[in-house]
Amino acid sequence: MKFYDCSTAPSPRRVRIFLAEKGITVPTVQVDLRKGEQLGAAFRAVNPDSTVPVLELDDGTRIADIVGICRYFEEIQPAPPLMGRNPAEKAVMEGWQRWCERECFYAVMDAFRNATPGLKGRALPGPDDYEQIPALAERGRARVTSFFRRLNERLADNEFIAGTVYGIADITAMVSIDFAGWIKLRPTEDQPHLRRWHAAVSARPSAKA
Amino acid sequence: MKFYDCSTAPSPRRVRIFLAEKGITVPTVQVDLRKGEQLGAAFRAVNPDSTVPVLELDDGTRIADIVGICRYFEEIQPAPPLMGRNPAEKAVMEGWQRWCERECFYAVMDAFRNATPGLKGRALPGPDDYEQIPALAERGRARVTSFFRRLNERLADNEFIAGTVYGIADITAMVSIDFAGWIKLRPTEDQPHLRRWHAAVSARPSAKA
Repeated sequence: MKFYDCSTAPSPRRVRIFLAEKGITVPTVQVDLRKGEQLGAAFRAVNPDSTVPVLELDDGTRIADIVGICRYFEEIQPAPPLMGRNPAEKAVMEGWQRWCERECFYAVMDAFRNATPGLKGRALPGPDDYEQIPALAERGRARVTSFFRRLNERLADNEFIAGTVYGIADITAMVSIDFAGWIKLRPTEDQPHLRRWHAAVSARPSAKA
Repeated sequence: MKFYDCSTAPSPRRVRIFLAEKGITVPTVQVDLRKGEQLGAAFRAVNPDSTVPVLELDDGTRIADIVGICRYFEEIQPAPPLMGRNPAEKAVMEGWQRWCERECFYAVMDAFRNATPGLKGRALPGPDDYEQIPALAERGRARVTSFFRRLNERLADNEFIAGTVYGIADITAMVSIDFAGWIKLRPTEDQPHLRRWHAAVSARPSAKA
């Protein structure tokens, strides 16, 4: 098994934390995104979409998706469960994970990639080049701010995002919030539930992964 | 159990097809998105995010997410499997489902919502109002065109998107491609594999759901 990673990037960090929570280690290959290694022929042969993370199984099967990779490990090693323990929990956890990804992770990505000078012409990851859209960067910032407010409300009555148990939704949200630091957006003083939760999940040893 | 649906909208159609493939029927409540019923107080009490579909379980648990709802039914009634049969298949299917959603469904949504006069000020679903961004509509069209080309390549050597078995990735892609008809983008004559696959999945009885 082989894990294509980039130690400085938020997307593979979501998988690294998931693996750390399960106590799983996988042989890792670093892909240098800053030097554009993901766009070179060698890595395109691994993933035509030019994104990390990618997990390669021993039979050659490749999983080029953050949550797909997490799913694989959840299936082969259910303990500790990070994607729900029964049908309703699994569905609820998936819904919240996707909400955090859509409303925060992608919004931070919009804000970051559409406003960073070094990413001119590369406003989206992947094989195709797209020009930056300044209005999309602005919208991304507004969405992240809205997300912080809504997540703070959610956490007023819930210890973790999906309820009483830590899981993949918390991983996605924590990585997204840390990613938002790249665009200088952070939970504010008037968001005590969000700050309580962020401190708690950040204190877990897995957060260093 | 109760399913909040909108019979004309692409998002809940993804769940309806999934249920039809499994032969499951659920009592349904129609939410009139064209009249803005999702933004009214009654529906916000069901889902503060103002989106359909939502599944309400008998104990009151609500799942406000397309794939979360599908996951619930996959777990309580595994046959026929639509999300993979073993860890590797589940991971691969999830990766392709997410690829189709991100690269096509969301791209069509960008193109449609940012260019449709009736959606001025409503460029995203959800509780917050965002102005349309014309450049994002254009980018969406370019991304859908790129997706058609890449999916055609994928289907040259694969009967279905994730490989040999029909599943949720095919549902997402079919609904996304039909949704692309709303912005007048369709697979072209020089995409025979995509057209072969689209004809096959569209001929399944579930496609009418």
